[in-house]
Amino acid sequence: MKPTEAYQWLLDYSKTTAYYQSAMGLLHWDQRTCLPKEGRAHRSEQLAAMTSLVHRRATDPGFGEILAEAEAGKNADDNLSDEAVNLREWRRNYDRTTRIPESLAVLIARASSAGELAWQTARQQNDWEDFLPYLERIVDLKRQEAQALSKGGKEIYDALIDDFEPGETAAEIEKLFTKLENATFKLLEKIEAAPRKPDPAVLRGACPPAAQEAFIIKVITHLGYNFDAGRMDFSAHPFTSAIGPGDVRITTRFDPDSFVKGLFSSIHETGHALYSHGLPPKHWGTPLGSSISMAIHESQSRMWENLVGRSRGFWKHFYPAARTHFPWLGKTGLDEFLFALNEVTPSLIRTEADEVTYNLHIIMRFKLERMLIDGQLEPQDLPDAWNGAMERYFHILPQNHSEGVMQDIHWSSGAFGYFPSYALGNMYAAQFYAKAQKELGDLPEMFATGEFSPLLGWLRGNVHSRGSRLLPRDLVRAATGADLDADYLIAFLEAKYEKAYGLRG
Amino acid sequence: MKPTEAYQWLLDYSKTTAYYQSAMGLLHWDQRTCLPKEGRAHRSEQLAAMTSLVHRRATDPGFGEILAEAEAGKNADDNLSDEAVNLREWRRNYDRTTRIPESLAVLIARASSAGELAWQTARQQNDWEDFLPYLERIVDLKRQEAQALSKGGKEIYDALIDDFEPGETAAEIEKLFTKLENATFKLLEKIEAAPRKPDPAVLRGACPPAAQEAFIIKVITHLGYNFDAGRMDFSAHPFTSAIGPGDVRITTRFDPDSFVKGLFSSIHETGHALYSHGLPPKHWGTPLGSSISMAIHESQSRMWENLVGRSRGFWKHFYPAARTHFPWLGKTGLDEFLFALNEVTPSLIRTEADEVTYNLHIIMRFKLERMLIDGQLEPQDLPDAWNGAMERYFHILPQNHSEGVMQDIHWSSGAFGYFPSYALGNMYAAQFYAKAQKELGDLPEMFATGEFSPLLGWLRGNVHSRGSRLLPRDLVRAATGADLDADYLIAFLEAKYEKAYGLRG
Repeated sequence: MKPTEAYQWLLDYSKTTAYYQSAMGLLHWDQRTCLPKEGRAHRSEQLAAMTSLVHRRATDPGFGEILAEAEAGKNADDNLSDEAVNLREWRRNYDRTTRIPESLAVLIARASSAGELAWQTARQQNDWEDFLPYLERIVDLKRQEAQALSKGGKEIYDALIDDFEPGETAAEIEKLFTKLENATFKLLEKIEAAPRKPDPAVLRGACPPAAQEAFIIKVITHLGYNFDAGRMDFSAHPFTSAIGPGDVRITTRFDPDSFVKGLFSSIHETGHALYSHGLPPKHWGTPLGSSISMAIHESQSRMWENLVGRSRGFWKHFYPAARTHFPWLGKTGLDEFLFALNEVTPSLIRTEADEVTYNLHIIMRFKLERMLIDGQLEPQDLPDAWNGAMERYFHILPQNHSEGVMQDIHWSSGAFGYFPSYALGNMYAAQFYAKAQKELGDLPEMFATGEFSPLLGWLRGNVHSRGSRLLPRDLVRAATGADLDADYLIAFLEAKYEKAYGLRG
Repeated sequence: MKPTEAYQWLLDYSKTTAYYQSAMGLLHWDQRTCLPKEGRAHRSEQLAAMTSLVHRRATDPGFGEILAEAEAGKNADDNLSDEAVNLREWRRNYDRTTRIPESLAVLIARASSAGELAWQTARQQNDWEDFLPYLERIVDLKRQEAQALSKGGKEIYDALIDDFEPGETAAEIEKLFTKLENATFKLLEKIEAAPRKPDPAVLRGACPPAAQEAFIIKVITHLGYNFDAGRMDFSAHPFTSAIGPGDVRITTRFDPDSFVKGLFSSIHETGHALYSHGLPPKHWGTPLGSSISMAIHESQSRMWENLVGRSRGFWKHFYPAARTHFPWLGKTGLDEFLFALNEVTPSLIRTEADEVTYNLHIIMRFKLERMLIDGQLEPQDLPDAWNGAMERYFHILPQNHSEGVMQDIHWSSGAFGYFPSYALGNMYAAQFYAKAQKELGDLPEMFATGEFSPLLGWLRGNVHSRGSRLLPRDLVRAATGADLDADYLIAFLEAKYEKAYGLRG
């Protein structure tokens, strides 16, 4: 085959695989939103059949041959053309997938599925001993996977990170995290000694589901979520499902006593959805039409949730509407409400943590899983290591493993290397935001007048529309003119929280 | 491969294909219940990719070879073992699918999709001229398909019927339909001259959606629909979607002024769902675990809708609950309500027709499409032929083509040979019901005390659990001890409606 023919073949092949994956996407979405109880066993088998189909295509030697034929026609200087980008990503994925022996891939798939199910029960029953053998199994297999993927020399944990953050390494992450950790500790010390404290009780009141739903729809529609190209349903754990162009769905859940949890969760998912909606539809099904990493995805969700959603400007605009939907807010002034919304306090559960302490939850998980994969820590010693880290970072201890080492789903399902993406996402978000602010003018002032589209437009142009054209570190350089740096996030947090806690004017 | 190995290979292959088809089932379900507007184009492409995958598997020469190897081990006398049945159906489908040239299959898929879309618009706008070229195209292609499938000698329309009713022929259907038509005309004459008439106005009143939903859930749960293995959603055209064992979903829609439409539509879909739920789960993904024909499927839906749902026994049990949900029924006695529910009157629209005239709608469509496929009638002459038939059968004429020749979706999407299944289904239903009544005792008396499970149990044992083991005509013989005969339906209708209209005691 000529290189141009080979490239065309690869495009078609990639899109067909993507249609199958997109069908799997709907199977997953339905599993979490609609599936009747007795249909679960069938759904597992259905997903296994589709997974196997997709895996066979991804590792097909015929694909590898034609990929090599297409690469033969590539100009060595060309790194940024459509063709160069797609070839780069196809190669990366093909090498990655084929380097894992099929027997190992099958064992990991089974152990992940079994581990996740065991975790669900063990967490409910606070039964670490029951969960431990599953975790041991999955850690053992993931070490083997990391070994198989590793190109020698570097630490093998890098190979797992690379699955979520192409090009990233533990050593580079460590540099960023150390800086962030130190700054966070200093900020927390100041906050602890601050002259005033928020009153979280002002956030609680009767929140009928219909009122929560109406307010959320109002907010996210205004932020840019398009209900003609998506929908919002309910699920135990909120998520975003990008089925295809024109079909990006989010889910939410409601706390009957507080609308803010459901609201921020929905804004978070809206951030993911806006990224997916902004990917170039003409490249759908190829790397160019796909998101580049988990951290970049989280940079979008966490920017809308935190940098936008927890800002004074946002609430200047939306607080009157919130009071219409939840009349008991009438007794609370905007300042008092905002301060409560931005309370900083050490807590046990990552997903409920505030903007400042959240990163510490991630950093301690990064350190623990790095040692686990490296063999410096064994699963049986994880609870002690966990509690030690909680003590060191937060000066609090979980009362049981369910609110401690067993709180997250990630490790149970083999997702090692995933956690760093959350805090990296916060850093990318702050850096993008700072640049957008520099180019667009006073963003909070715009939010206060209901203007969110300039920020969205900037993200569309500088992040979303790029798909996988640039690796994350290159993307942030292209979008902001600077290397990824923790300073943007640190500066943002210091300015915001020192002001909130009355430490600066 | 040894025949036993070949058979095992075919079982696995069949199940894998079924998982893909089951994923398509969910894509279709979602398209009609959940899909956001802007996701439609993507969904079409996604379905096309999956269709092509399934079609390639169904026509794969490798499958044909292994099928022949498995058949080589078959005992010639064995027609009813699990193995014999699966081999019979795999052979039937493989021969059928491979006899259609792939180029023709692709043209038909495109023309069907285009035809259905054109029909939707043309029907809304009552624009026959706009629709005609699409219909001409699809009729031309279906004639070619029928020709390709035909084994010579017989009329080619039979090949299309066979897709819905394996083993059935137009000549055999004609015999049944002629008998039914003559009896129906006689019954209608009597009804027209009857001393009393029902008052359909008693069926109308305010029917809030929540009340309709609650009543429907009460009724269909009582009939045996299991919400742990299904769900009920809303769609423009109600349908049943059997995704897999433990996951059979129905949809409904509500008329704000009359709960009976939504109710009967839901009972109809429940009948389909009970059949799907009753298929043997261990054979799922193979012919033995599949329904055998459209007419048998309709026999189940139409039995629950009409023979059960429109019976006095049913309403003796459910009328008090109906009055709780729709208090305005308080002013109408059970007899008056029942009579209105069973009003017989000529009408333009098939889907709204009563139990007696419904079959005439089917018979006229059967005659028209038979002539269309045979070439005795051309699409351009169809409106005149339609109106002529309406005049002859019902003595009424549609005011426009939307309530005439363009009312049904079937022809627009290439579903020729489908219509007869509805009236055949009514005949199968009446014959099953008569036999069940003979074996179980007074069914309406059971219904009156809320006992519907004996009938369901009989259907499970005699129809559902058989899957595709027997062809429809063999199935009715095995279940009732007699050949399919229109007399059971005729006797049922005469007894019920002569009594309702005061023509017999």
